[in-house]
Amino acid sequence: MKESRLTQLVDWLKQENISACLLTSTPNVFYISGFYTDPHERLLGLLAFPDTEPAIICPNMEIEQVKKTGWAYGIIGYSDTEDPWEKIKKYVTNQNLTIEKIAIEQEHMIVSRLHKLQSTFPQAQLTSAELKMYDLRLKKDADEISILREAAKLADFGVEVGVHNIKKGRTEQELVAIIEYELKKKGISQMSFSTMALTGEKTASPHGKPGLDTIQHGDLVLFDLGVVLDGYCSDITRTVAFGDVNDQQQEIYETVLKAQLAAIGICKPGVEIGLIDKTARSIITESGFGDYFTHRIGHGLGIEVHEYPSMNETNTMLLQSGMVFTIEPGIYKPTVGGVRIEDDILVTESGIELLTSYPKDLHIIKA
Amino acid sequence: MKESRLTQLVDWLKQENISACLLTSTPNVFYISGFYTDPHERLLGLLAFPDTEPAIICPNMEIEQVKKTGWAYGIIGYSDTEDPWEKIKKYVTNQNLTIEKIAIEQEHMIVSRLHKLQSTFPQAQLTSAELKMYDLRLKKDADEISILREAAKLADFGVEVGVHNIKKGRTEQELVAIIEYELKKKGISQMSFSTMALTGEKTASPHGKPGLDTIQHGDLVLFDLGVVLDGYCSDITRTVAFGDVNDQQQEIYETVLKAQLAAIGICKPGVEIGLIDKTARSIITESGFGDYFTHRIGHGLGIEVHEYPSMNETNTMLLQSGMVFTIEPGIYKPTVGGVRIEDDILVTESGIELLTSYPKDLHIIKA
Repeated sequence: MKESRLTQLVDWLKQENISACLLTSTPNVFYISGFYTDPHERLLGLLAFPDTEPAIICPNMEIEQVKKTGWAYGIIGYSDTEDPWEKIKKYVTNQNLTIEKIAIEQEHMIVSRLHKLQSTFPQAQLTSAELKMYDLRLKKDADEISILREAAKLADFGVEVGVHNIKKGRTEQELVAIIEYELKKKGISQMSFSTMALTGEKTASPHGKPGLDTIQHGDLVLFDLGVVLDGYCSDITRTVAFGDVNDQQQEIYETVLKAQLAAIGICKPGVEIGLIDKTARSIITESGFGDYFTHRIGHGLGIEVHEYPSMNETNTMLLQSGMVFTIEPGIYKPTVGGVRIEDDILVTESGIELLTSYPKDLHIIKA
Repeated sequence: MKESRLTQLVDWLKQENISACLLTSTPNVFYISGFYTDPHERLLGLLAFPDTEPAIICPNMEIEQVKKTGWAYGIIGYSDTEDPWEKIKKYVTNQNLTIEKIAIEQEHMIVSRLHKLQSTFPQAQLTSAELKMYDLRLKKDADEISILREAAKLADFGVEVGVHNIKKGRTEQELVAIIEYELKKKGISQMSFSTMALTGEKTASPHGKPGLDTIQHGDLVLFDLGVVLDGYCSDITRTVAFGDVNDQQQEIYETVLKAQLAAIGICKPGVEIGLIDKTARSIITESGFGDYFTHRIGHGLGIEVHEYPSMNETNTMLLQSGMVFTIEPGIYKPTVGGVRIEDDILVTESGIELLTSYPKDLHIIKA
């Protein structure tokens, strides 16, 4: 349990005169309570109030797990045939609370639940809990940094396993299997997203899926992967060449690397996020590949693999120490191939710390 | 591309006088278009209209993949700095459409997007696309059944690998690693949910997470797993014993098996779903374990591992041929352990076909 996080949330409710907060996303419930579960289509929620004991609402079968995490407050369980909203109403009524204003996760709550909430508390005004939760989660504390550092090392290891297992005729999916097997042996039970190993022309698809395509001489091979460790994610991308590279592949690789190093190079507290994207983008554009860099420079990283803030060129937010995010420029040229290089960055008091550290010089693997 | 599915959706829009439908969930977009992607926090949508060409809205970097699936209609791409809702508005304006009524996925669309949609089309009345999509997806066609059958066989194989690799001192996570490695070698790139291998008292937690707990003499070992094959899920649970079982473990096992066989035994077209749950539940309750069967009897299965319909005791829907779902009673007794047995069931014209077929008699693995 993270007492100080709960206290900060409750203090905010008091300051803003909010009667109740209902957090419904797994990451936010975990951040405040330490309880991590994927409730699938069932309702999971953390209810906090300014002057009343908070409660977790969850399916009955999760109650034991909630207790095991050390949650010392209310637990509202419900069966598959009970209406969780009725249970919430009862809890609130029993506590003699008047709900005038409720903070919800507008980026997570679905429309049907909004309607349920509105019919449960028809008088209540709605407000957003999102900005407050973004704010609380933005700067990682020492415990979180220590986990993120370890998660990044495991991502490095995943790439190392992938690169060492490249050989002619091996399929993308075999590479994925080998990487995940080695990580599972190290105790990793969940990847932060579907591990990507792409080869040849498929590297030109930023969200391509590994398949039965085999590695051939002259292919680029791209790995994008991360692990979930104690609820926190890592995310790394490396691209290597097999056997040989042609001039255009090499030019693309060097352009991406130059852009990535330049973007990382300007990161420190006080720097505008948009400038990081622009720094990389201008290098890629000047090299004539601007049309092939089709996404933002990166994203926040923590409990979620893509979290606040979005690292894009229009973001005017300034970097602060404790922020963790990715820097991952890419060039994807259809029929030629794609290169992306991605690291996880922690902003420190004076600059940055690279959490991922797998080498980035163009590596041509002997065929 | 699934022309007839799109046609059925469009016909429904015409019948109901709905000006536009915006599908936003990966499963529904996939069902209609054949395009499968996880857009993370970005907007993915399929727009259908009664008399105008449909369109997929997606991040620019997904456009090539959409085309590759054979989608022959509109594609509205957007960059990370563009507002997808502006793009949708422009598309609709260019087509000279008046949007009076929009069908959305209320079980998927988040509140912030609802607000965006409402400000994009302030005059539009909202309605739900969910029931129609549930209805379209409920009865699986021959292609879907063929994939689901194959996916179930791979789930059987996963359990087989798990059972064969049980040995004293092995951790739950090692079992998961071995199972997934063998499945990946068969070309499976995604499990339908986090593979579960639990041992000892942890089997009493229906949603427990595999960890570093080791298998010991006298433990129950529970596997719950499934694969994603060509966009469709399987889901199987088996529980075995290691070395020996005590009387209570055996009684629990036999009760669950009896309940599961009885529930499966009554399935055929025309049977009420609630009765399936009640059949299993009454057997478990009569044996004195009613309080330890803390969830519904099962769930629909298809593109999603948990999909419509919910197989619970209050559901009055009748089974129809082509429906696919799980039957998975369980008894979870803290400190003793838990047993769950789950199969995937296809309703046929005359009865059912068991898609999963791994043996269910109590298997005591020699220590």
